[in-house]
Amino acid sequence: MNIQGLSLIGDEPATTGAKTFQALNPSTGESLVPAFHEATSEEIQRAGDLAAAAASQFSRCPDRKRAALLREIAIEIEHIGDELIERFTAESGLPRGRAEGERARTCGQLRMFATLIESDEWADPRIDHADPDRQPLAKPDTRYLLRALGPIAVYGPANFPLAFTVAGGDTASALAAGCPVIVKAHSSHPGTSELIGRAIVRAVRTSGLPTGIFSLLFGGGRSVGTALVQHPAIRGVGFTGSKSAGRQLLDLCNNRPIPIPFFGELSSLNPVCLLAEALDADPVKIAEGLHASVTLGCGQFCTNPGLVLYVSDTPAAVQFVEKVTNLIEDTPPAPMLSASTRASYGEGLALVGGMPGVETLVMGSPETGLGKASATAALFRCSADVFRKNPPLHEEVFGPCTLLVECASLDDMIPAVEVLEGQLTATIHATEADLAASGELLPLLEARVGRLVFNGWPTGVEVCASMVHSGPWPATTDGRFTSVGTSAIQRWLRPICWQNAPMAELPSSLRE
Amino acid sequence: MNIQGLSLIGDEPATTGAKTFQALNPSTGESLVPAFHEATSEEIQRAGDLAAAAASQFSRCPDRKRAALLREIAIEIEHIGDELIERFTAESGLPRGRAEGERARTCGQLRMFATLIESDEWADPRIDHADPDRQPLAKPDTRYLLRALGPIAVYGPANFPLAFTVAGGDTASALAAGCPVIVKAHSSHPGTSELIGRAIVRAVRTSGLPTGIFSLLFGGGRSVGTALVQHPAIRGVGFTGSKSAGRQLLDLCNNRPIPIPFFGELSSLNPVCLLAEALDADPVKIAEGLHASVTLGCGQFCTNPGLVLYVSDTPAAVQFVEKVTNLIEDTPPAPMLSASTRASYGEGLALVGGMPGVETLVMGSPETGLGKASATAALFRCSADVFRKNPPLHEEVFGPCTLLVECASLDDMIPAVEVLEGQLTATIHATEADLAASGELLPLLEARVGRLVFNGWPTGVEVCASMVHSGPWPATTDGRFTSVGTSAIQRWLRPICWQNAPMAELPSSLRE
Repeated sequence: MNIQGLSLIGDEPATTGAKTFQALNPSTGESLVPAFHEATSEEIQRAGDLAAAAASQFSRCPDRKRAALLREIAIEIEHIGDELIERFTAESGLPRGRAEGERARTCGQLRMFATLIESDEWADPRIDHADPDRQPLAKPDTRYLLRALGPIAVYGPANFPLAFTVAGGDTASALAAGCPVIVKAHSSHPGTSELIGRAIVRAVRTSGLPTGIFSLLFGGGRSVGTALVQHPAIRGVGFTGSKSAGRQLLDLCNNRPIPIPFFGELSSLNPVCLLAEALDADPVKIAEGLHASVTLGCGQFCTNPGLVLYVSDTPAAVQFVEKVTNLIEDTPPAPMLSASTRASYGEGLALVGGMPGVETLVMGSPETGLGKASATAALFRCSADVFRKNPPLHEEVFGPCTLLVECASLDDMIPAVEVLEGQLTATIHATEADLAASGELLPLLEARVGRLVFNGWPTGVEVCASMVHSGPWPATTDGRFTSVGTSAIQRWLRPICWQNAPMAELPSSLRE
Repeated sequence: MNIQGLSLIGDEPATTGAKTFQALNPSTGESLVPAFHEATSEEIQRAGDLAAAAASQFSRCPDRKRAALLREIAIEIEHIGDELIERFTAESGLPRGRAEGERARTCGQLRMFATLIESDEWADPRIDHADPDRQPLAKPDTRYLLRALGPIAVYGPANFPLAFTVAGGDTASALAAGCPVIVKAHSSHPGTSELIGRAIVRAVRTSGLPTGIFSLLFGGGRSVGTALVQHPAIRGVGFTGSKSAGRQLLDLCNNRPIPIPFFGELSSLNPVCLLAEALDADPVKIAEGLHASVTLGCGQFCTNPGLVLYVSDTPAAVQFVEKVTNLIEDTPPAPMLSASTRASYGEGLALVGGMPGVETLVMGSPETGLGKASATAALFRCSADVFRKNPPLHEEVFGPCTLLVECASLDDMIPAVEVLEGQLTATIHATEADLAASGELLPLLEARVGRLVFNGWPTGVEVCASMVHSGPWPATTDGRFTSVGTSAIQRWLRPICWQNAPMAELPSSLRE
């Protein structure tokens, strides 16, 4: 298969866009062929119109047809073979093993949602029978089921070219719900996106479902994305990316004549709290675990632990800091996802390192090492007081760095936790005795996060029914939903009640 | 008990507000004592601060404690006795039977949510066990539970002084979820609101829970309400009222530094479709049912049927129109809720009646009859074509009136349905043969509503697990949730995942 550089409007390649952009290989700095044509306003309009026209049929088709579609997409993705893996690594700078792992995760997610909607209970069917004799008024027969919200726009991030983008969790959950999907591909990995988009189009054809249920749009800047959320057919948005891009799209959604729900995952520091007895028990193991989590994938995970609060007045704490410092120093440079990722990593390092009261333990850089495209890890330290009083330190720095915050005691740690905004995760290393003495720490963390990790690390988000990848603002724009796990489908559903409906007019899961 | 005219900040009456307003008896036009003191900025601030301080303890208290609180509130409301019923009727102009019915519904809702949270499954507990041997990575133990979102602001409408306001469905569901509640009382029934607010405060005291979990604010204009949604402690809003007030609060919520979810129920026409064979079978009975639904409570229900599309080229259709016309003409005038309700009813009548192509079958008025405070019912008719082409006819007129839309056939009805915005309900009168021949009608209605009623009427919203009181914009601001029924609690919950947590740190429903 050759990559054509064209958006897909339903199952037709879009050929009219004159504006183009190219992907860059972040490991070499070279442009990758072909050039990608930006979708025109007319093409965006047509994608929305096709989705609107397909919405009702897709929403009302039997669940097993949508399940079959999801399974077919997974098969089509697996059939692409090495071309997908090679393009993924070229566009992202991520290693082959990661590409293969992400492909497995993507196909696993598609099959998980297929299995979910094959169950009888997934759409929360509820039946209340009539009671004609009830006083003072007869009780009607009412039946409840979740149904598709309508066409969804999906925006993926740079850091998951497969699992969070074209056929990622947002798309898989929206298609499972019965919502047509229009993806705005991330401009850092358009080739990977096109390969996946064409796999979806082939699966849609095989399924016999209307081709308007999926479109893929390319755009180098923000104009395609901003036009898409304003199409009247769009009924919801799934977004993973930066706070600034997310807030811009959120505001556009809110200011539409008909506002629509926007689920964006924007930013997280993922604080780690190391309590005294746990740190004392094995400071080296904790240092090794932290280092591995901070530097995994060159620190480019939403759940990267960017903040470590530790009880610092023990010999174990000194040993812990020494060990982390050595491990971070010895970390080989690695390519980052894109020039803009490197630039913002550099800005973040300068901001944190330049803050009065912050000590640079290991000087990182976005550009040393294997050519300009690589980054080295960094380590900073400050007091709980300095952390608490400096809001810029409460912002995520995307990349392989973390900030150690010395806390004289638990009483010193708690006020530092209180200033934190919403987070995807918080991690606590603690023994039973530590927990028994931890007072308000856990309630404070619980109020701020979507996931609490005990004696482990936040990177590595399990895809399962009980996962929560969410959190209060700015972790996400609506902490009532999650973007990972089966529950992610709830973003794209709304309840409908049928009152005294003839059996033949009810969805099959509400019949008796 | 005497009504004091003071906001309740936690359990303390607020005594500093100098600005006052009074309720009016809509049946007589007389002012009701006492004057109500508008909450000051400091009082609003303090209510928010108290709610924030109480949130964590309230969220984490055992479910049975919150259930006991809800049951105690119901008992306290019942104990108020006749003073409540008398003030309700004086402030609303609604009859005693309605006041008693609404009190029963309010207490029923409180007990329904108590029963809900006494079940083990209400917060959707999910457990995925660890698998240390899984390849390539060990699987962690993850457990999922819905938890309280945080302090909620509640704004009730004029038309349900009990069931949708101070201790109504929004408050009951939010307290059940574990969210502190701050109610902005509707200025048309402040005395009823104070009586209920003080009942809640007494129940909170009895429960031993922190008094900051409930406050009640008075304000005559919009300033108290707009200040409340901007308090940083507020994490969500429940609103029932007009499109303009709702959109203003929604925009304030969206434009906060930290946006918060807003669930508003704003507007609905509640279309009724009368298909040929069903209309033919009993035009008089359908006319009687329609008339009763349109004029119930002087037409002041969110689910009032304001639009009737009917297949008009039969003798039965002529008979139907004649019968409805006679019934509407013979309807005695009734008081409306307030001067502003009467004013907007009058504006609506003038707008619809003055539209070219609209025939006035019965001229209604907001002010004839029993003194200035009363309204008479109205009936209009137009063609499907006129309806389709005139967007002002697609807007709700709040009051006892409806618009009959003549459709030459089903093919004429469908384009008229296609122009409709989101609705709380749609009703269809149809035989089996009508339904078999109805083509796209049901899918089109389903895409636009929260509830589909067959061969009945939309007024009378059953409070149960399978009820949906919601719909796409502008019926509500977020059709993924409902404000009536047990599912209403989902607006105030967010999921949290515990990963590898020690058993003692888990909420009890996640332990084994």
